Amino acid sequence: MITSRKMVTQLIMAAKVQKQLKWVDVAKQVGQSKEWTTAACLGQMQMTKQQAETVGTIFDLNDEAVAWLQIVPYKGSEGVANDPLIYRLNEALSVYGPSIKELVHEEFGDGIMSAIDFSLDIQREKNENGDRVKMVWSGKFLPYKTF
Amino acid sequence: MITSRKMVTQLIMAAKVQKQLKWVDVAKQVGQSKEWTTAACLGQMQMTKQQAETVGTIFDLNDEAVAWLQIVPYKGSEGVANDPLIYRLNEALSVYGPSIKELVHEEFGDGIMSAIDFSLDIQREKNENGDRVKMVWSGKFLPYKTF
Amino acid sequence: MITSRKMVTQLIMAAKVQKQLKWVDVAKQVGQSKEWTTAACLGQMQMTKQQAETVGTIFDLNDEAVAWLQIVPYKGSEGVANDPLIYRLNEALSVYGPSIKELVHEEFGDGIMSAIDFSLDIQREKNENGDRVKMVWSGKFLPYKTF
Amino acid sequence: MITSRKMVTQLIMAAKVQKQLKWVDVAKQVGQSKEWTTAACLGQMQMTKQQAETVGTIFDLNDEAVAWLQIVPYKGSEGVANDPLIYRLNEALSVYGPSIKELVHEEFGDGIMSAIDFSLDIQREKNENGDRVKMVWSGKFLPYKTF
Amino acid sequence: MITSRKMVTQLIMAAKVQKQLKWVDVAKQVGQSKEWTTAACLGQMQMTKQQAETVGTIFDLNDEAVAWLQIVPYKGSEGVANDPLIYRLNEALSVYGPSIKELVHEEFGDGIMSAIDFSLDIQREKNENGDRVKMVWSGKFLPYKTF
Amino acid sequence: MITSRKMVTQLIMAAKVQKQLKWVDVAKQVGQSKEWTTAACLGQMQMTKQQAETVGTIFDLNDEAVAWLQIVPYKGSEGVANDPLIYRLNEALSVYGPSIKELVHEEFGDGIMSAIDFSLDIQREKNENGDRVKMVWSGKFLPYKTF
Amino acid sequence: MITSRKMVTQLIMAAKVQKQLKWVDVAKQVGQSKEWTTAACLGQMQMTKQQAETVGTIFDLNDEAVAWLQIVPYKGSEGVANDPLIYRLNEALSVYGPSIKELVHEEFGDGIMSAIDFSLDIQREKNENGDRVKMVWSGKFLPYKTF
Amino acid sequence: MITSRKMVTQLIMAAKVQKQLKWVDVAKQVGQSKEWTTAACLGQMQMTKQQAETVGTIFDLNDEAVAWLQIVPYKGSEGVANDPLIYRLNEALSVYGPSIKELVHEEFGDGIMSAIDFSLDIQREKNENGDRVKMVWSGKFLPYKTF
Amino acid sequence: MITSRKMVTQLIMAAKVQKQLKWVDVAKQVGQSKEWTTAACLGQMQMTKQQAETVGTIFDLNDEAVAWLQIVPYKGSEGVANDPLIYRLNEALSVYGPSIKELVHEEFGDGIMSAIDFSLDIQREKNENGDRVKMVWSGKFLPYKTF
Amino acid sequence: MITSRKMVTQLIMAAKVQKQLKWVDVAKQVGQSKEWTTAACLGQMQMTKQQAETVGTIFDLNDEAVAWLQIVPYKGSEGVANDPLIYRLNEALSVYGPSIKELVHEEFGDGIMSAIDFSLDIQREKNENGDRVKMVWSGKFLPYKTF
Repeated sequence: MITSRKMVTQLIMAAKVQKQLKWVDVAKQVGQSKEWTTAACLGQMQMTKQQAETVGTIFDLNDEAVAWLQIVPYKGSEGVANDPLIYRLNEALSVYGPSIKELVHEEFGDGIMSAIDFSLDIQREKNENGDRVKMVWSGKFLPYKTF
Repeated sequence: MITSRKMVTQLIMAAKVQKQLKWVDVAKQVGQSKEWTTAACLGQMQMTKQQAETVGTIFDLNDEAVAWLQIVPYKGSEGVANDPLIYRLNEALSVYGPSIKELVHEEFGDGIMSAIDFSLDIQREKNENGDRVKMVWSGKFLPYKTF
Repeated sequence: MITSRKMVTQLIMAAKVQKQLKWVDVAKQVGQSKEWTTAACLGQMQMTKQQAETVGTIFDLNDEAVAWLQIVPYKGSEGVANDPLIYRLNEALSVYGPSIKELVHEEFGDGIMSAIDFSLDIQREKNENGDRVKMVWSGKFLPYKTF
Repeated sequence: MITSRKMVTQLIMAAKVQKQLKWVDVAKQVGQSKEWTTAACLGQMQMTKQQAETVGTIFDLNDEAVAWLQIVPYKGSEGVANDPLIYRLNEALSVYGPSIKELVHEEFGDGIMSAIDFSLDIQREKNENGDRVKMVWSGKFLPYKTF
Repeated sequence: MITSRKMVTQLIMAAKVQKQLKWVDVAKQVGQSKEWTTAACLGQMQMTKQQAETVGTIFDLNDEAVAWLQIVPYKGSEGVANDPLIYRLNEALSVYGPSIKELVHEEFGDGIMSAIDFSLDIQREKNENGDRVKMVWSGKFLPYKTF
Repeated sequence: MITSRKMVTQLIMAAKVQKQLKWVDVAKQVGQSKEWTTAACLGQMQMTKQQAETVGTIFDLNDEAVAWLQIVPYKGSEGVANDPLIYRLNEALSVYGPSIKELVHEEFGDGIMSAIDFSLDIQREKNENGDRVKMVWSGKFLPYKTF
Repeated sequence: MITSRKMVTQLIMAAKVQKQLKWVDVAKQVGQSKEWTTAACLGQMQMTKQQAETVGTIFDLNDEAVAWLQIVPYKGSEGVANDPLIYRLNEALSVYGPSIKELVHEEFGDGIMSAIDFSLDIQREKNENGDRVKMVWSGKFLPYKTF
Repeated sequence: MITSRKMVTQLIMAAKVQKQLKWVDVAKQVGQSKEWTTAACLGQMQMTKQQAETVGTIFDLNDEAVAWLQIVPYKGSEGVANDPLIYRLNEALSVYGPSIKELVHEEFGDGIMSAIDFSLDIQREKNENGDRVKMVWSGKFLPYKTF
Repeated sequence: MITSRKMVTQLIMAAKVQKQLKWVDVAKQVGQSKEWTTAACLGQMQMTKQQAETVGTIFDLNDEAVAWLQIVPYKGSEGVANDPLIYRLNEALSVYGPSIKELVHEEFGDGIMSAIDFSLDIQREKNENGDRVKMVWSGKFLPYKTF
Repeated sequence: MITSRKMVTQLIMAAKVQKQLKWVDVAKQVGQSKEWTTAACLGQMQMTKQQAETVGTIFDLNDEAVAWLQIVPYKGSEGVANDPLIYRLNEALSVYGPSIKELVHEEFGDGIMSAIDFSLDIQREKNENGDRVKMVWSGKFLPYKTF
């Protein structure tokens, strides 16, 4: 019996390692970007019935697991801040976060950059001193209003 | 007597509010990007003598403060995670962080995206459904090596 | 053997996903509001024998689980603050909490809004700029007394 | 010299106590709701020049303080969770938070209730068993999208 | 300038030490129990104008401080859990808390013992094996209701 | 195999729910107060052989579990502070703790109220405005000594 | 104005450093052990009038400070666990704590070693492989009782 | 399969409870002090092959468990600070820790008391006012050196 | 089914204890340094197919486990800070960390010592006063750049 | 009045920034290594009278500050873990700490590497791919003993 979405994520990861699958290939079959697809498989997004069935076929999931993929999950990750790759992302926000706040408010006024109406794109940036990771975050600006 | 870099940041903020300055204008005078300049004024970057003197003139700082701007600071920000704008940046990493890790490793192998050999660019992205904040993070990929 | 109320909640969630049930339909069968019924199924409220048996039938629970539903549970939720929906509720309290405190004291004097003699109502609020979630919290004011 | 928005909040609170002012009266002069006005005075909202000058007059603030009122503040409150009134608000979210999540997703699908495009209304609800505090939270529903 | 209720508590404590006053004598002058009076002087209760003025006279407080005594304070204490006397109170709740929960629910059903409609009495209990501290907590039972 | 006292507590709770037992009845059979007996069954007190065997009979425990009941347990409870009933007990200590400290020292001098040479009594207090929970804590005063 | 016992501790430490005093000499003048006297000067014990006046003379304290020495302090230390000497004391308890618990219960039954009816003695233990620190802790055993 | 030293500790505790063994008897068979032997059985010390085999015989451990006893364990205990006996040991260090630091430095200069070259002895101290627990800690003084 | 890299680490540790293997011998077979090999076996490094198969043979791992060894793991260790050996490493950084920062910046300017382009070497250093552990950390200096 | 060693550290840092001194030059005047000298100036080591006077002359400290330099300080640093340079040192211990533990025990048996009988050396390591930071840690191995 599957009692949480996390159990499905573990099933997906176990199958991915055994079958040596790639997220970009999974994404092509699902028909969404590699960023959204990976997040969805890792338990951060709700899938449609069709997406869930495709993912179920790719990772040999049973019906119960496929049903869980269509549920809105509890989102967010825990206990990963020690990982060096993830730490550096957090470090960048720690170092630049207040500057981002200053510059967004200077450009847009009071409000926030949405993390819901949001998309993410990750690319290899060719560079002769060593290739770079390029991430583009795009989120709708949402202004505070008086009431 | 100034006993920490944080005291200089407070002096800069107090002057900025009183003089109603904009970071983009400060950046032009300093001759660097608005992102780097803001981070430097907020105590995250070491300034050259010339940069420090320019910033000192803009914000009416005394010699002692200008000397502190040329010191490598203790970096990172604390106690700001409750702010809604900064929270959403952290939330995006919480939701998408493991996916970023998966995709960077899939593309580059084991290693990290540098937060030191790193640059940041923040722009307004015009959109008829409401303008968007577009952030580009570019960091050199650094591979782990066996030894 | 069922050794905690949390195990029953997991059984309910697993059955709900598999059977694709809706809380509003569960609530109708239980005969209480959707808000109270959901909270009760999630382990926050004690059920009467009749309510427990109805819930047991809906979710195919055995007698042991039905007995646990009639016990006063350990209440409150943990480890959910990272979820974006729940975070925003906490954020609203972080931003507006001291203001609520000021205004309740200004209107009622020293005391609190009860979270026990309390009810909650959640509705869709039609709006041409996008529908809104409307939540009404109603709690008895309880005054501090001198003694 | 004023080096943070919190110092202005302290000045406002000190003046409010000494002058025995009421937030509802402040709000009338500012021309906004009592909820927004209180939040703004407590350092959670950016004021326009006119609002800031009105508030400055009410609380005898100097020009420097009035300038700070027009800056987007670092928002959120800390260290108040021990207060019984605020605790019970948090308790209500701890007890009902997952239920709210379930019911919002059931009604709207995956997404969140905005805490930015948000308004709050607090009223006395007459009741013969003891008057009640009635709070209405209204926030725009923001759906997650695939990308 | 007094910017918080805590500052008034510090003034009261400083005066109490210098004048070598006793809480039982303060309570007599205020006309309330020693338990309520001590809590009120330590910043946990709102005083009436008359109570505040009496306390002001006892501890030589100025008008500003007396005004603060009439404000509803932020309640609760922090950073005292290391003190041996207070620790043992917390320990008693840690050891007996779940038992109290079981027995209150067994006697009253689902609900809580109010900490607002609450009184406290502390007495010396004579005992030939060494006198004892006797504390009586009395709080109204508040039942959860379905809705 | 039973490897901790907590496992026995879970067995007791599971049996209690299934058999619908009451702590007051268990206490009568054990021959101690309901407060001590409940605490002992919840893993906070060491039982004698006879007490353990009585409890074993009541809850259908095997010999291994009965042996564990005679061991001095690791005491204290964790992760229960979110429960509304237990929270209010902690809140009362947060609000009144420093006052209790002041008044115990004023009456007895430096020292503490024992949480070991301690007893607890919980009663229903009839009251026409709603019955009350009355708890009496009695602990020996233990003075600090110079050495 | 002195508003806490900690301020007196700071005055004592500042005077001790400037006058280059030794705790053993302070203890002789106070007439108690060096362990008790040091703890009392560091704000962990209440002094008698005579002890306080002696300490006041040694460290040039004013009457206000001497009055504070006669108050029962908030005890315990914070933020010192990083210090290597203090860390190793905590480490010894972390490594041997459960063993101490086992052996005390084996010898005495259920109960605790008092930290109130307690004395401490620290001596140099001559040893040809390097002298040793010898600490003797003596605390009354207090048994739990049934009730 | 045994995957950690903690699993062996659980096996030892389960056997000890069932067989009603005493640590002093185990120690005699192992040929070390009761303090060292208990710590070793609780997973804080590495055993020799012979010690491990003796312990294995006493507690009916299989070869795999006996092999684990000869591994250097991860030391230290967690989650036990709520236990009243262990808490009082920590409290004593919280109250007297800074005094111990002062007196060790006064006698020995800068350095620490070793928690590695360390021994512990626990005895019953007869006393007509109630027997006492006497603990002797002996640790080599290790001086800091300049370099 | 293996659902995480940690499960493989547990299998490796269980096999290592049973077979009484040494890391230096494992390293020789793998063909890397003992430091890298140990880290890789403990789940901190990604192995090549060949390395994974060698490790699989040494520790009798099945194909699924061998597949996991070739995945980039979540790195970093948790819950080990209480161990005396590891604590002293952390203590050294706590005591000397700010000095290292000062001296690296003095020599190299603003930037960091890489923990990715990094190697570690641990040796026995013969010494007549007792042998010493000698660790050499070598990490590339990475300078911050303006942008 | 100087009431803590931290205040002296702040005076030293303020003077160092204003006078643009280098630690290597300070170390030469003090006559110790740059690593020890920096740590001592940052409040981690006790200085002799002569060292303190030299440091006092270099940084224009008054007699009171020079007296504090000769006191054993509370050691360790707090709140610096967010700094990128210091973070990477901690990260290296997080990634390699358990491996270091394994290898030290494999070579030396049970025990620790001393952080007291310890020295540190930091050097620039020339490298054509970019210079490296080379740190050598040398600490005496201290074995656990049975007792």
